[in-house]
Amino acid sequence: MSDERSIEDVLARYVRATDRRDGAAQAALFTDDSTTQIYTRTGPAAWEPVGDPLLGPAAVRYAVDTFMSPHPPLGSSHHVTANHLVDTTGDTAHISAQFVVFEVRGAERPATGWPAGTLGAQGTVRPVESGYYETDLRRVDGAWKIFRHEVRMDLPMALPGA
Amino acid sequence: MSDERSIEDVLARYVRATDRRDGAAQAALFTDDSTTQIYTRTGPAAWEPVGDPLLGPAAVRYAVDTFMSPHPPLGSSHHVTANHLVDTTGDTAHISAQFVVFEVRGAERPATGWPAGTLGAQGTVRPVESGYYETDLRRVDGAWKIFRHEVRMDLPMALPGA
Amino acid sequence: MSDERSIEDVLARYVRATDRRDGAAQAALFTDDSTTQIYTRTGPAAWEPVGDPLLGPAAVRYAVDTFMSPHPPLGSSHHVTANHLVDTTGDTAHISAQFVVFEVRGAERPATGWPAGTLGAQGTVRPVESGYYETDLRRVDGAWKIFRHEVRMDLPMALPGA
Repeated sequence: MSDERSIEDVLARYVRATDRRDGAAQAALFTDDSTTQIYTRTGPAAWEPVGDPLLGPAAVRYAVDTFMSPHPPLGSSHHVTANHLVDTTGDTAHISAQFVVFEVRGAERPATGWPAGTLGAQGTVRPVESGYYETDLRRVDGAWKIFRHEVRMDLPMALPGA
Repeated sequence: MSDERSIEDVLARYVRATDRRDGAAQAALFTDDSTTQIYTRTGPAAWEPVGDPLLGPAAVRYAVDTFMSPHPPLGSSHHVTANHLVDTTGDTAHISAQFVVFEVRGAERPATGWPAGTLGAQGTVRPVESGYYETDLRRVDGAWKIFRHEVRMDLPMALPGA
Repeated sequence: MSDERSIEDVLARYVRATDRRDGAAQAALFTDDSTTQIYTRTGPAAWEPVGDPLLGPAAVRYAVDTFMSPHPPLGSSHHVTANHLVDTTGDTAHISAQFVVFEVRGAERPATGWPAGTLGAQGTVRPVESGYYETDLRRVDGAWKIFRHEVRMDLPMALPGA
């Protein structure tokens, strides 16, 4: 597999772990000395940090397991990433990717069955967030791992107590 | 072209055939002994089959041509796939992909033209379904073909008579 | 980097330049003799041109800088592309890609802070356009450049004075 594809593979596993709320799987993609920082957009090409950086994989795991709201029954999500730009220099690399997050909410089938005339998928798929990942990776024992991860969100964030 | 890219190419042709409601083009991507099964989500990592599997390419073609609702005038759709994971072992391979389906409905231009002040794209683009493809392929005479295809839909499905 | 990836790279830079409203960066991706034409869908597999073609990179730059509406404060956009098909023959190539455009509008944080109980991303992410890029590229001094670019929009367009 090419380096570029291996690096995209890490990002694919990262977003899938987020969608599963699987902090352990996500943390395994980071180096021991990794930093992760969330930003929100303040202008066309300007971003400001939100909160403190997450230091190392244990902090990544804790954040996913603690701060991400669990999906309701029949709920799920998709972090779609697109238009990747990958630059590799020896054992370090950068990937830049767009993302759009979809919140998926399935409708409960009524105990009496769907009403007459109801057909097809029942529920909603709704885009709720978007932005860019700007992510630096390093090759460790032959595997690419994230050592610096910026999540640049397009929308302002309301945080507890802020 | 790398194996990974050739396999993504099959998936790209698959979703494009779906969006065109082109059963013949889609069927041509499957092996003679293929099985296709739709599932819907019942929990965070649980899925149940919907209906019986489609056996072979003729059943795929029949399903696309018969069961998918045709697009209305100025209607179309996009199956966006993302975050592919591809694993290849010799002449067999697996691709896992997220998908989000967008239903596109163009507005009819009024006979008297668009009202004053109307500007830009007229109509709606709406996400209506999402899920994962889990797809096994085999190399047949140098070309990758699908021999097992799982469509794992996030939303419950209401079927005629169900 | 493989030719296929280099060509996808051009498309990724193209849509990112559109999202940044950066006419100069977008124009740099085109050959001196390039033609760019927008189409809108008139049927399942039928498209009609909208306006005249843009001839050369200067026209591309002018169009981005003049005709695209600037983002409002806290506004941005994402052109997501997917399901690329790339065909390369020597020093020419074609890429076909689906696109979906998301309009992003951030909410302004009230001077008194977010209301009690407000949590997470504040604003809207809305799909507003979709279609296909059908794009021909030529290798010029080792770099792939666009010499023919078709933007096939699914939705009808209302233009000033039309």
